[in-house]
Amino acid sequence: MSSAVESIDLRAAREALSASTPLVHCLTNTVVQTLTANALLAVGAAPAMVDAPQEAGEFAAVASAVLINVGTVHERTAEAMRLAARSAGAAGTPWVLDPVAVGGLTYRTQLAAELVELAPSVVRGNASEVMALAGAGAGGRGVDSTAGADDAAAAAAALASRTGGVVAVSGELDLLTDGRRTVRVGGGSLLLTRTTGAGCALGALVAAYVAATGDTLTGAVAAHAHVAMAAERAARTATGPGTFAAAWLDALDAVGPEDLAGADVRTA
Amino acid sequence: MSSAVESIDLRAAREALSASTPLVHCLTNTVVQTLTANALLAVGAAPAMVDAPQEAGEFAAVASAVLINVGTVHERTAEAMRLAARSAGAAGTPWVLDPVAVGGLTYRTQLAAELVELAPSVVRGNASEVMALAGAGAGGRGVDSTAGADDAAAAAAALASRTGGVVAVSGELDLLTDGRRTVRVGGGSLLLTRTTGAGCALGALVAAYVAATGDTLTGAVAAHAHVAMAAERAARTATGPGTFAAAWLDALDAVGPEDLAGADVRTA
Amino acid sequence: MSSAVESIDLRAAREALSASTPLVHCLTNTVVQTLTANALLAVGAAPAMVDAPQEAGEFAAVASAVLINVGTVHERTAEAMRLAARSAGAAGTPWVLDPVAVGGLTYRTQLAAELVELAPSVVRGNASEVMALAGAGAGGRGVDSTAGADDAAAAAAALASRTGGVVAVSGELDLLTDGRRTVRVGGGSLLLTRTTGAGCALGALVAAYVAATGDTLTGAVAAHAHVAMAAERAARTATGPGTFAAAWLDALDAVGPEDLAGADVRTA
Repeated sequence: MSSAVESIDLRAAREALSASTPLVHCLTNTVVQTLTANALLAVGAAPAMVDAPQEAGEFAAVASAVLINVGTVHERTAEAMRLAARSAGAAGTPWVLDPVAVGGLTYRTQLAAELVELAPSVVRGNASEVMALAGAGAGGRGVDSTAGADDAAAAAAALASRTGGVVAVSGELDLLTDGRRTVRVGGGSLLLTRTTGAGCALGALVAAYVAATGDTLTGAVAAHAHVAMAAERAARTATGPGTFAAAWLDALDAVGPEDLAGADVRTA
Repeated sequence: MSSAVESIDLRAAREALSASTPLVHCLTNTVVQTLTANALLAVGAAPAMVDAPQEAGEFAAVASAVLINVGTVHERTAEAMRLAARSAGAAGTPWVLDPVAVGGLTYRTQLAAELVELAPSVVRGNASEVMALAGAGAGGRGVDSTAGADDAAAAAAALASRTGGVVAVSGELDLLTDGRRTVRVGGGSLLLTRTTGAGCALGALVAAYVAATGDTLTGAVAAHAHVAMAAERAARTATGPGTFAAAWLDALDAVGPEDLAGADVRTA
Repeated sequence: MSSAVESIDLRAAREALSASTPLVHCLTNTVVQTLTANALLAVGAAPAMVDAPQEAGEFAAVASAVLINVGTVHERTAEAMRLAARSAGAAGTPWVLDPVAVGGLTYRTQLAAELVELAPSVVRGNASEVMALAGAGAGGRGVDSTAGADDAAAAAAALASRTGGVVAVSGELDLLTDGRRTVRVGGGSLLLTRTTGAGCALGALVAAYVAATGDTLTGAVAAHAHVAMAAERAARTATGPGTFAAAWLDALDAVGPEDLAGADVRTA
């Protein structure tokens, strides 16, 4: 049974983000930390990257939201991620899991399975990753997905039912579901896929928006719409993938409540 | 008692930096390593990021200056920082401590207190961090400060007296003191606060300038003035926070001795 | 005895790269991961940074090529590098060694000597590094070289004979040799030396091109020519070292088979 989605107010979400400056605790891969921090700053959030086991639990308890991205995970950061996820859970703080390349590599696949049991508010990945995490696929060959977002619709819904949260699948048309309702977000640009860390930064923006709006599905959808709209704008001024990254950050800053209200969000 | 500051020759400082290409050994957080290295290259210094315990002491002994920034510190890098600080001290090499988020997190606060005992040539942070390090405040909620630089004036002076070096507090108006003399640096741009790592890169430039000039207060002031002036220029051409970062690096390169001599430096 | 070089078909190399989207497994330093990933994406390859010992061997076995760069190596990543190099060797996968600052620091110099015994397909470094690795020099003071590429010609040839692969020495005129044949690549821009990670990204592009072409010398030469040509283009539009980095990525993307065929490649 599919419920109607009536409550996605993108204008209010953007206003809430600007008004609240959520502090997003990121345990993320070292390739994308800079872009992730700059994307958070661009939309008006406050980033902090803290991934020592000695600090991760303490910091997750005071942050507005937590992002856990396993892109370059290893023993120390895996331990920090477990501590942060537990601490966020205990504090009622929303947290996002980005299962980068899960399915393709044993160690992180086991870690992600463990983290899923801790009930992330949002899982954000590509179709291969979400299917692997849901136990429905063999995973991709790394960070790219060989499947479209809608191929993962059933896996996403099943996974959302297990976590009690939202699952977001990135693709040409992004698919987001809480297990009952499904929302698709269009727009964006292929240049996003040629900018390392754009998807990872999206995970951080999901965390920021969920904290700001207090609503998991609304926050996740608003982040996807914001990223897609900024990418469309940046693609119009960029002269290639290098200048696109900076233009995208400029556009993340520039997209306001009125703009975001016009995003391509489809509630089936 | 306050002494007059007569010796801040910014033109000579910029010339000395260009002439000497100081090698700056950076033990810094993984979020800002790229911008830090590029900022050093832009002003004419040579960066090297070496943070293995097996190498940190060896390298600090041959570098022109050392930067220690605890932004993403953990057990291994904390050990490397201790070794680098001791090695720099033994070699008479200037070193800078950037106590990112100290006060807000127990582990790094203890580490920073330990490093302060090793007498850094310069401590550079925001008001919350400096007050926490001086034992005068509870710290901020991460990398941002809720206090202005002048709120930390007494704490900075006390800390400088303890280390025998300079303490620099970033703010709308930067405050620098060696415990006797106080200098304020104006200018800059709010976009600096929306670029991750700009403050951390400033710490590296302080290290470079102190090595180049051989005078701790002069070097620290010149670095702050250089960063602020470059930020003002970049703000005039940037179209948002993304393009600002690249424009700031361009401007760091372009600001020469004659330009820097006109910086907004106030010796009270 | 010197053999003629007749087989460097740059047009075909560029076409092969675009057609094959090689997956390049990078174990590289944290300063340059972002630029390296973006450079690979810009030329049409797929990057993946995996440096946990639990995953490095598994991933190297499925990647198209592997890059090992010791720039910020420490105990964990050294172990991952050993596992990746052995796994690549066992799978017949080409791999590139970038001996950053080898010669100047004991720990990494020993590690690099160990890795050389595992027969990297390509060693890419500056003259100081190559001479140190070949046992013919004392190394530089970090990442910069005090010698020209041709100063390392004999060391490069000797090293290539030992590994059975190619050795590439970066300089104003790059020198590449397989121990019998020698190729020089001109062009480029001094701004490359003022962009942190440009040389490290070149190492990754060498890995990508060797995988795509199936010929070690051709692949290594094509990567050097591609980087140099893109740098020349970027230098024409950049207004400083900050804007150069983005312009260089744009140009890496834009340089096609026809362009590359006109590169300054000199087969002695």
